[in-house]
Amino acid sequence: MQSIAHFTTPQIPDITDPALTARLQHTLDQKTKPLGSLGRLEALALRLGHILGSTAPALQQPQMLVCAGDHGLAARGVSAFPADVTGQMVHNFLAGGAAVSVLARQHGLALTVVDCGVARAVEPPTAASTAAAQNGTASPPRLLQRRVAAGTQDASCGPAMTPEQCAQALANGQEIVRGLPGNVLLLGEMGIGNTSVASLLLARLGGVDLAACTGAGTGLDTEGIARKRAVLQQALQANAQATSPLQALAALGGFEVATLTGAVLQAAAERRVIVVDGFISSAAVFVASRLQPTVLQRCVFAHRSGEPGHSLMLAQMQAEPLLDWGLRLGEGSGAALAWPLLVSACAILREMASFEAAGVAERLG
Amino acid sequence: MQSIAHFTTPQIPDITDPALTARLQHTLDQKTKPLGSLGRLEALALRLGHILGSTAPALQQPQMLVCAGDHGLAARGVSAFPADVTGQMVHNFLAGGAAVSVLARQHGLALTVVDCGVARAVEPPTAASTAAAQNGTASPPRLLQRRVAAGTQDASCGPAMTPEQCAQALANGQEIVRGLPGNVLLLGEMGIGNTSVASLLLARLGGVDLAACTGAGTGLDTEGIARKRAVLQQALQANAQATSPLQALAALGGFEVATLTGAVLQAAAERRVIVVDGFISSAAVFVASRLQPTVLQRCVFAHRSGEPGHSLMLAQMQAEPLLDWGLRLGEGSGAALAWPLLVSACAILREMASFEAAGVAERLG
Repeated sequence: MQSIAHFTTPQIPDITDPALTARLQHTLDQKTKPLGSLGRLEALALRLGHILGSTAPALQQPQMLVCAGDHGLAARGVSAFPADVTGQMVHNFLAGGAAVSVLARQHGLALTVVDCGVARAVEPPTAASTAAAQNGTASPPRLLQRRVAAGTQDASCGPAMTPEQCAQALANGQEIVRGLPGNVLLLGEMGIGNTSVASLLLARLGGVDLAACTGAGTGLDTEGIARKRAVLQQALQANAQATSPLQALAALGGFEVATLTGAVLQAAAERRVIVVDGFISSAAVFVASRLQPTVLQRCVFAHRSGEPGHSLMLAQMQAEPLLDWGLRLGEGSGAALAWPLLVSACAILREMASFEAAGVAERLG
Repeated sequence: MQSIAHFTTPQIPDITDPALTARLQHTLDQKTKPLGSLGRLEALALRLGHILGSTAPALQQPQMLVCAGDHGLAARGVSAFPADVTGQMVHNFLAGGAAVSVLARQHGLALTVVDCGVARAVEPPTAASTAAAQNGTASPPRLLQRRVAAGTQDASCGPAMTPEQCAQALANGQEIVRGLPGNVLLLGEMGIGNTSVASLLLARLGGVDLAACTGAGTGLDTEGIARKRAVLQQALQANAQATSPLQALAALGGFEVATLTGAVLQAAAERRVIVVDGFISSAAVFVASRLQPTVLQRCVFAHRSGEPGHSLMLAQMQAEPLLDWGLRLGEGSGAALAWPLLVSACAILREMASFEAAGVAERLG
């Protein structure tokens, strides 16, 4: 098992189960529809049935976990937005006005926002603003304070985190998931500068050319992208010794990415369904999968981001996302958007009639 | 205006409105997200706002309309399933066990099933089975009897319908939509043999080579597809004079396709959002759009079917569907599956905070 400081990667069992796969396929094939005619919805049903170990899987109490952190790299001008926006957006998540807030409310997803290390600590919302964010539905968004530090160090000058900080963030992610109900975890994040982190992790752990990993993020122009690439090249050079997954995570950083990595490992160990959002959430899964490839058996990739590095990262994980909509917002917005498709896949397995039960003739010949 | 027998195509106004488009774009651009970062969700929001004439569009009382009919062509072996399945599946829709029933229930879509001309008339379900289908949610599926005849004639020998029958089916579709509440119509269909109808309409009205229009439908093998192509070639020859959209619709047939065409024209005239399902539903929209191209301004195409002709038909309408999942079931299953994505698009416009309201800094420079 790989480890860093006081953190040791948990064992994630292989859940391959040919007998269950056969039972799931048989169940789908008895439904009143031509064989395979629900296309990718059937593949999704198979995967969800497999993760939850049932031919009648039920998604329960889905949890949207949005991890936020600030990045020393942001001071180097790698983003189109000022770093203050990280904390401002956390407030917006809690107040109900962000995309992920709106979509989580639409679908009844419980929303937990974690301050993993925003530069200026996020204050819990007042009762009045919480009531407003709730907007008459489900439970209001919730803030957890799991701050490792007030933002990471500038990775272009050396490690973004110490090994101890990285271990702390990983353990925080595990602990948070242990405390969440239900059997589904949806991943979200916020952190000005964190597409840089995802690009760096892809370049280092995936062996992908940095230029191909680096895109416009929240909206850099051509000149801005060139500047970002130069800074990221410095970060790779300043952390040349960080080659293992956990060393790279610590060195190239992101408290929110490390917290999500811990959350992914814990969710996988508990055999929860993990719904992956865009480039940064995928980076956390990418690191986790380099520690324990079996993590990927529990993942559903919600969408292919408009950020070019995401496609390369998905390819490394042999992931086929559900939507290809050019989203590049993060927050968990794509995971929330795709959520009802998972519900549909389970409903097909659970609620559709068989040919026999419905008295429908099967195909000729 | 084109007409057939007692039916005259209604005028569908052009709803192009650059001022509204600009207001919608401005509204989206003030939301707390990088410009354009919600990708195709933003394009969908623009379209829905445009159709409903509002920067805060609200989808109300969505209606799933599933039109069913039988086809003389089916006796020629153009389908992998026996023709009896049309009526059996109508019962399954009403009993709540079909894919479209399950997905409509998931999303609270009112489900209306229309017998447009099933070979053996569909009996209304009993109160007990209706209660079972309802499964504790919303209103139960509803059957409308708008039978033009007990299936169409065999189009490989001559016209599938008389002009009067086609006019009746079109008028039925208009009348049904006039009686439906809400501002959204989702299209569905059932009819063993009706991919043949869609292929024929695409070949005739789109000038596409018949071989490219013809696929496996519900699951023909290579030999079956070859047989189907030969039969469809006969149908084109037997109806060589049917070149206008309404002549082709009558000659190549489908009571359910003609009823849906009438429904589409009426929904467009009322400026409802029209959510298009797969190949056969698209064929009804295709015919309607050849009568009144402005119909397409009201349409959202839910998915790209696995049936190869669908991509060619979508290209003729310059349509970009939301999902590309290889669905080929019909029934309206793809429209129902994609439905929450439309709800999300409206929620973004209605509920997301602006930078100013949320106190979030805008981009640098």
